[in-house]
Amino acid sequence: MLTLDKIYHAAFVLRDVARKTDLIEARELCKDSKIYLKTENLQVTGSFKVRGAYYKISQLSAEEKEKGVIACSAGNHAQGVALAAAKNNIPSLICIPDNAPISKVEATKAYGAQVELVAGAYDDAYAHACKLQKEQGRTFIHPFDDENVIAGQGTIGLEILDQLPDVDVVFVAIGGGGLASGVAYAIKNLRPEVKIYGVQAANAPSMLRSVEQGEPITLDSVNTFADGIAVKHPGDLTYELVSKYLDGIVTVTEDEIACAVLALIEKQKMITEGAGAVSVAAAMFNKVDIAGKKVACVLSGGNIDVNILSRVITRGLVMAGRNSTLTIRLIDKPGQLTAVSEIISRHGGNVIGVFHDRGDANMAINGCYLKIAMETRDHEQVNEIRKALTEAGFVLV
Amino acid sequence: MLTLDKIYHAAFVLRDVARKTDLIEARELCKDSKIYLKTENLQVTGSFKVRGAYYKISQLSAEEKEKGVIACSAGNHAQGVALAAAKNNIPSLICIPDNAPISKVEATKAYGAQVELVAGAYDDAYAHACKLQKEQGRTFIHPFDDENVIAGQGTIGLEILDQLPDVDVVFVAIGGGGLASGVAYAIKNLRPEVKIYGVQAANAPSMLRSVEQGEPITLDSVNTFADGIAVKHPGDLTYELVSKYLDGIVTVTEDEIACAVLALIEKQKMITEGAGAVSVAAAMFNKVDIAGKKVACVLSGGNIDVNILSRVITRGLVMAGRNSTLTIRLIDKPGQLTAVSEIISRHGGNVIGVFHDRGDANMAINGCYLKIAMETRDHEQVNEIRKALTEAGFVLV
Repeated sequence: MLTLDKIYHAAFVLRDVARKTDLIEARELCKDSKIYLKTENLQVTGSFKVRGAYYKISQLSAEEKEKGVIACSAGNHAQGVALAAAKNNIPSLICIPDNAPISKVEATKAYGAQVELVAGAYDDAYAHACKLQKEQGRTFIHPFDDENVIAGQGTIGLEILDQLPDVDVVFVAIGGGGLASGVAYAIKNLRPEVKIYGVQAANAPSMLRSVEQGEPITLDSVNTFADGIAVKHPGDLTYELVSKYLDGIVTVTEDEIACAVLALIEKQKMITEGAGAVSVAAAMFNKVDIAGKKVACVLSGGNIDVNILSRVITRGLVMAGRNSTLTIRLIDKPGQLTAVSEIISRHGGNVIGVFHDRGDANMAINGCYLKIAMETRDHEQVNEIRKALTEAGFVLV
Repeated sequence: MLTLDKIYHAAFVLRDVARKTDLIEARELCKDSKIYLKTENLQVTGSFKVRGAYYKISQLSAEEKEKGVIACSAGNHAQGVALAAAKNNIPSLICIPDNAPISKVEATKAYGAQVELVAGAYDDAYAHACKLQKEQGRTFIHPFDDENVIAGQGTIGLEILDQLPDVDVVFVAIGGGGLASGVAYAIKNLRPEVKIYGVQAANAPSMLRSVEQGEPITLDSVNTFADGIAVKHPGDLTYELVSKYLDGIVTVTEDEIACAVLALIEKQKMITEGAGAVSVAAAMFNKVDIAGKKVACVLSGGNIDVNILSRVITRGLVMAGRNSTLTIRLIDKPGQLTAVSEIISRHGGNVIGVFHDRGDANMAINGCYLKIAMETRDHEQVNEIRKALTEAGFVLV
C-alpha cells in the first residue's frame, strides 16, 4: 500500500541520485497569477522517470537484483531505468521499438543498458519484453502502475511543498498516471487544501475518459506530438489514486501544447518536450480559474526530438508574424524581382527564399507567381510590406 | 576600489532580487572532465546583467535616485537596468537602436522602463544617451566599466565557490569584461589556485588583442551572432582586472558557438544565446586542457532571437544528418517521383520538400533535376538512401 512514509523513504534513497530540481518563478507566462515551474526537464536523464525507476530498483531483493531488470519504452522510462540500474550496479535490458529516434536508443545505451530493438510498434516491443521477462526471470519495471514507482515520483510533491509552502494549485501531466498519482498523494496528504489538476493531451485523454466512465478504459488510438503521455490505457493503481486525489482532469490541444513549448523557450529559456509543457499549457489557456493564485506546473521532461522542436519553432514564428510568405502575381519580365525585393528591404523585411512558379494553368501565358519567404518583425510589418507592394502596383494573391 | 567586501555586500543586497541560479552538472558535454553549468540564462531577465545593474543603482545617493538613471543597450543590459530601477522604485530611460528586435524593446518596457528608440546603430544610440544624460542629470549606468557593476557580477563567483568548493577551472565570457572581472576577482581572492579563462568570439577579440598589446585597443569591426559580446573596445577598469586576474583568454569560432548552443538544447534542455554558450564551446572544443578537471562554465544569458535559434537548430540538423537534401537527375516522365519517394520511405526517410527544376541550360531537353528535402536519422541512413537510389538506376548529382 502506498503511504506517505514510503514517499519520504524514497526521498531519502534518492538524495544522491536525483537532483532536487529548482522551482523557478515564471513572471511572464500568465498575467493574473504567479506561475512556478518544477523543472524536471533539468532532472538527470532529462525527465522525472529516474526517480520512480531508481526507488523501485533499490527496493528489490538481493536475488531479484542479481537476475537484473527489464523494461519496455521508447522514451524517458528507458533512460530512467537504464541509469537507475547502473547506479544500483545491476544489469538492465530495455526493449525499444525499432522506429524510435536513434538519439533515444543511444542515450539509453550510454547509461549502461543492454538494448534490444524490436520490429514494430510499442505493443510489439512490450510483448517481446514480457516474453523475455519470463524466460530470463528478470524483474519487469512498469513505467507507472507500480507502488514503488509511484512513491518515487511522489518525491516531487514533497519538494514542491518544501520550495513553495503556500502553493495554491498544481498542474501535472497524466499519461499512465504515475507522476500525477505520486504528486497528488504526497501533497493531498500533507496539505489537502491545495488543488491538484491532471492535464492530458486532448488527443490522448485515456485517464479522463476512464474517470468519466468509472473504470479504466482503452482508447482505440492516440495521436499527439506529446509522445510521453500518448497512453491508450491507464494503470489500475494509478486510476484508483487519480480518481481519489485529483480535483479534476483538463485537456489541452496540440496547438496549445506547441504554444507552451515555444513560450517556455522564449520566456524561460527552457526546452520541454510536449508532455513536459502540457501543465504550462493548462495554466496559459485558463483551463481552470487560477487568477490571483500561486500555481506550480510540473515540467515533466525535456527530451524532445530536435526535428519536432524545429517544427514547433517554425510554426510559432509563422503564427507570430516573424516568418511569413507572400505570393505575388507578376508579368514575367526583367526587373520585377528587383522592384519587389527593394520594397521589402526598405520596410525592414529579410528575404530568405524566392520561388518562381510558371506552371499554373490558371495563369496568363506571360505571367508567373512569385513566392517570397521573409523574416519579419511582426504582423504589422508584414502588413506594411503588403500595403507598399500593393501601392506600387503589384497584385498579391 | 573593488574589494571582496564590496562583492559580499552586493550578494547581501541582491539576495531578494537575483536568483541564486542552480549550478548543474552536465554529464554529456565532455567525456574527460566534469562540466558544471552556472545557469544565469535562467536568471531573472534572462541574463546576469540584473546583478550589476541592481547593485549599482542600490548604491546611488537619494538625490541621484530621484533624478533617475539612463542606459544604452540593445540587449540584456537594457532589461537588467529596467528591472533594477523598477525594484529600486526609480525612473529609468533606456536608449535602444531602432533596428533592435521588437521582442527586446517590449521586454524592456514590460520591466517598467521608458524606452527611446534611436535611429541608427549602437554608437548613435550611445551618443544620444550621453546627450540626454547631460540634459536631464540622470546617472548613466555603464554596462561594464564600473566598480559597483563589476561587484554585482562578482557575486556569481561567490556562488560558484559555494556550490562547487573544489572547482578547478572556470570559463567565463568576455564582451566588455565586467562579468569576467567580477567573477575572477572574487574567486582569485578566495581560491587563487582556481584557473580562470576568459572566452571571446574569434570575430570579436577586443580584450584578447588589448591584453596582447598591453593597452585597451579598439577593433574596426566585430561580426558574431553572439551579439552579447560583440564589443569593439573593452573598459579601462575591466582591462586592468582581466589582465591581473585571468589565467588566459581563448577564442571560439561561430560554428563552435553554434555547436555549443545546440548541445545545450539537446543534452541539457537549456536555451542560451550565443554569448551564453561561448564558455561551453571553450570546454567542448578543448581550448584549454581540462582532462580530469572540475570545470564551471558560466551560461551568461539566454536571450536569443528565435529566428537565430531556428537557424542554429536547422544548421545543426543538417550537420548531424538529421535533415538532408538529395538532387537527382531525372528523365522527365510520369512515375519517377513515385519510384524515388517509395525508395526513400522504405529506408525510413521522411520527405518534407520536393522541387522540380527544368530550367538548367546544362540539362537534356527531356531531363529535370529533382530536389528532395528529407528528415533522416543520421548520416548513415542518408547514405543508405543514396545507395538504394543509385542501385535503382537513379543518377544523384
